[in-house]
Formats: sequence, C-alpha cells, structure tokens
Amino acid sequence: MKNVADPPLSEFERIARFFAPLAAPGALGLVDDVALIDGPSGEQYVLTTDAIVEGVDFPPGTAPDLVAQKLLRVNLSDLAAKGAAPVGYLLVTALPRALGEDWLAGFAAGLAKDQATYGIGLLGGDMSAIDGPISLTLAAIGRVAAGRVVLRSGARPGDLVYVSGTLGDAALGLAVLQSRLALPDATQREFLIDRYHLPQPRLELGQRLAGIAHAMLDISDGLVADLGHLCAASGVAAVVEAAKLPLSAAAQPAVRSERQWLMAALGGGDDYELLFAAPAGAAAEIAALTQETGVAVTAIGRIESGSGVRVLGADGAPLAVPSAGYHHF
Amino acid sequence: MKNVADPPLSEFERIARFFAPLAAPGALGLVDDVALIDGPSGEQYVLTTDAIVEGVDFPPGTAPDLVAQKLLRVNLSDLAAKGAAPVGYLLVTALPRALGEDWLAGFAAGLAKDQATYGIGLLGGDMSAIDGPISLTLAAIGRVAAGRVVLRSGARPGDLVYVSGTLGDAALGLAVLQSRLALPDATQREFLIDRYHLPQPRLELGQRLAGIAHAMLDISDGLVADLGHLCAASGVAAVVEAAKLPLSAAAQPAVRSERQWLMAALGGGDDYELLFAAPAGAAAEIAALTQETGVAVTAIGRIESGSGVRVLGADGAPLAVPSAGYHHF
Repeated sequence: MKNVADPPLSEFERIARFFAPLAAPGALGLVDDVALIDGPSGEQYVLTTDAIVEGVDFPPGTAPDLVAQKLLRVNLSDLAAKGAAPVGYLLVTALPRALGEDWLAGFAAGLAKDQATYGIGLLGGDMSAIDGPISLTLAAIGRVAAGRVVLRSGARPGDLVYVSGTLGDAALGLAVLQSRLALPDATQREFLIDRYHLPQPRLELGQRLAGIAHAMLDISDGLVADLGHLCAASGVAAVVEAAKLPLSAAAQPAVRSERQWLMAALGGGDDYELLFAAPAGAAAEIAALTQETGVAVTAIGRIESGSGVRVLGADGAPLAVPSAGYHHF
Repeated sequence: MKNVADPPLSEFERIARFFAPLAAPGALGLVDDVALIDGPSGEQYVLTTDAIVEGVDFPPGTAPDLVAQKLLRVNLSDLAAKGAAPVGYLLVTALPRALGEDWLAGFAAGLAKDQATYGIGLLGGDMSAIDGPISLTLAAIGRVAAGRVVLRSGARPGDLVYVSGTLGDAALGLAVLQSRLALPDATQREFLIDRYHLPQPRLELGQRLAGIAHAMLDISDGLVADLGHLCAASGVAAVVEAAKLPLSAAAQPAVRSERQWLMAALGGGDDYELLFAAPAGAAAEIAALTQETGVAVTAIGRIESGSGVRVLGADGAPLAVPSAGYHHF
C-alpha cells in the first residue's frame, strides 16, 4: 500500500516499478538507456530514444536550429557511449499550432547541418499539434559489432574512472544564460553557452573504446549522478578526486574560486561527455586514443568494491555533492 | 517567397517541404509511415513511430490503460499494414508533474495486457516532465522477410480496393462520447466507444496479405484521405462505391439514415482497418484469408489510371466527402 505521506517516486524508481516488468530481453533491464536487437552480418543495432521539452530541456525562445541539433546530439551521445556508429533516426514533433514555418525551416536546417556532420539520415517520424510547449522525441539507431557493445554494467574494482573533454561547461553556460553567473570575457561566455546548447557526441572515441572500456555512459544528469548509475549497474563503488576534474579555460576561474561552481561541475548535467571505467593497464592505449581522436581523456578516480560514489576534495576530505545539480526552467 | 496571405501548410506539405529533403534511403521518401533497415537472416526491420497527445488524440480523463493500449495499437496497426510481425517498442512519456502513480500503474497495466496479446516487449525509452498535456510517443519495430514488405506505392489500374473490418465505428464512437450522436442501445454505444478507444491492429491479416496486396496502409486519417495517400504514392486514381462500405450493426442505422454519419464513415479517422489494393484475380485467395483469420475483408471499389479519389453514392452520382472528417477535442 502506498502511504499518503510517501514522497513521489523518482524517474528511476518509476521506471523500476512500472516499466522494468515490461522489458523485453534486448532491453537490458532498462538500466542502460539503450536496447539491442540483432542486425545483419554479425552486427547488433543499438536503439535509444530521448525527448526534449521546451521550458524543461531548453529555454523558450532558443533558436530552432540549436534545438534540432541538441535533440539529435543527445541521442547520438547515447550511441557514442555504447561504442556504436550512427545509422539513422526517427523524429516525432508535437508543436504548438502558433509555431510558424520559419521555425520549422530553422529546425530542418539544424538537422541538415548535423546530418552532414555525423553521416546520419532521417528514417521517418510523426508530426502532431500540442496545446502546450514544444515537445520533441528522437529515436536513434546505431550499429556495433555483435558482442562489442559497452554496457553500464561491466566496471570492476581496480578500474580507473575516466571522462572525455571538460566538465561543468554546460552547467556554467546555462548559469550565464540565466544571469546567475557573470563573466567579463565575451568569448568565454559564448564558449560556455555553446557547450550548453551544442553537445559534442564523442562518436569516434566511443567506438574506439569498445573492447577497452569495461563500462561506459554519457553524462546527462551530472557526473556524480551518472557515475552512480554506472556503479549501481556494475555493483561497485567509485571514488572521484575533485582536483582531477578536467576544466576548460572558461570554467576554471569560477570552479576554482567558488564552491557553487565546483558543485555545478560535479553535479550539473548536459555535458554529454563520455564517462567510463577501464582497467589500469589500458592507460597507455587510452592516452594514444586521446592523440588520435583529438578528444582529451582524463582519469578522475577509481572503482572500488561496495556501492555509491564518494567525492574527495583537494584536501582529501569528502565533499557532499547535491544530487540534483540540474536546473530546470 | 511566402505570401502573407498563404494558408498554413498541411502536415503533408510540411513533411514534403522540410523533412523529405532529410530522408535517408530506408525512409522510402517519408511517404510510407515506416522505414526499412536490414535485419538478420534475410529479414528487414520495419520501423514506425506515432505520438498521441491528450486533448488531440484522446479526451482528457481517458482511463490510462486505454491510453496505453491505443498508443501501442496505432503503432502495431502501422506494422500490420506493411505485412510485418511485431518485435518490440520504445516508449517516451512526457507527463504533467501532477499525474500520480495510480495513473502510471494503470498505464503500465494497459501495456502489460497488450504485450501479452500481441507478443511484444518494451525495449527502452525515456520519461520527462511537461507543463502541458500528456504527450506519449511510441516507436514500434517489426520484421518482414526481405522484399515482402507491402508499400503504399504498388497499386495498379485494374486492382480492386479492399478494407478490413467495418468503417466509421470509431468516428461514431467519438460522436457518442461527445454527445453528438444519441443511440438508444447501450450495448451498441459501448461497442462504438470501444472501437474508438481500442483499435484492432490486423497483424495476422496484414502478414498474410504480403505477397498478395499490391499496396496497403491503415486507415487513421479516414478512408478517403488515406486512399488518397495510397493513390498519390502509387500514381493512380480510385473509385469507391459508398453502398459497399462494410458497416457494423451498431453503425448501420445512423449511416444509412443521416448523411453526416455516412460522411463520418467515409471521412472519419481512427478506424485502423487495413486498406489495400489487390489484383482482381486474387479475390478467391482473399476470401479464403477472411475465413482463416476471422477478419472480414470487403471490396469497396477499384483502382483506375489518373489521380484522386471519387466516391459514388448509391445512385451512382459522385459524393463530396469533407477531407477533414477527423474531430479534434
């Protein structure tokens, strides 16, 4: 019996309670953000779907080409995190009737730009009207050699924890957009806002990490929350050293000087960088990948036995990171 | 240049202008509501996606299990119309925060019921919050032997036009729900409302028609509109004899006595019956399928050269059918 005083279930609890019992074998228990079905010639298809809603995932008034690119890229980032190459996508739009054709033209232009960048095409979809905010759903299909997919569940004690790129830029970019963070340098402001609007799916790096990484996902809920998902799926614990977080030149001054921005880097979402666990012996191979793909990869901690994620400050003392670093509008 | 006085583009015009240029080869030019990608062992996957929005596709307050079943079934109906067998589905929910767990429990129960009926499982998905109406998207995956998929584009002059089941029930059921149609018999009222809420995807019949039907789709926009889509994709015309429309016992009195309900049967959406063109020589084979699958199939007209759809009344004179028979809330 549900007690009236119980707090509402989180998204994860809702999925576990209501949807996990419905999962097909290829759904991987719904813990991995992707599903697998058999493909041709010894390959598997990786399926993923993500929705974005105006006012929740992007601010009202965001340019339609940026909305389109974010929608496509958050899904491509899920493919990257499984070591998959993109094949195509399905698109469903629910648009307010007042939205004109200029908006659609800009939206389509954003898709066209990214289709060229990522070598992916539109497979189909549906359009409907909504008396509410712009609501967009995309399902992306990727492919990976059978058995090579990198799941969330393979991390082992002794593995090192790595992230690609830099962390916190998107959370700081959103803070700049919302006037919660003032930066004197216009170029740095634009860099951070750009990082918020335009994730960089690490497709090549992800594919190269298949066979090396034991477990991988992309950071969309924030480093600590997503590392928690990886640990829960793998049945392990993780320790992160905050001093090792890779920071961009634009983010560094704020993160190093104010605790709230360090927390944004540790807990903020929307970075869409790869987070993975790999054996310590693979360090040289991973360093070489950094060279070849041009994407920085940084070891920030290690996997241990147990459960949960601990973050240690520069002085070695534990830091409490708010679990909901993500800001909704 | 867009003239200020131009009417807004229809959904089909929007797709043709903005999205068709983005289509991948497997997208079939976005005219077929499904996409094809290679599967294992000489099969192809059929991908389709459809969204339903509260207040547009179902009335506010509809029981959550019915909402779930309609969402799944409208997608399964798309698979049926291609001759495909269902494999699995992805689900994206955008739910108002106020919606409680009772609603989700009912929704999941509806999915569970239909998963058992149709032998399909949940592969993955995404949940998000929305400050607006309930907005649900489902992508269904089916499989078909390579080269056996039935497209919209194969109809030829001389083919007969067939429909499965009975037409107009869903439009009349909606009219009953909205108190636009009064029926004295409670059983008939419930039958029609049920036909509106719970489409019957004709999966077995659809699969059996692969190799027989030249072109097929399911009726979601209304008989005349959808036959128009089939004709446009095939480059042909069609003539329908209104007197041949298959009608349920519940629909017959209204449709036979009032012109508006005849128009609802010809133009109303939501029937989710199969509409197909097949060579006249296949009539005996199709009659046998009716016996074997237990689903009635009725010849209602023929394919001719030319373009467009003509409907002839009982007296042989043309009937003008309003193109938008579909009622939004």
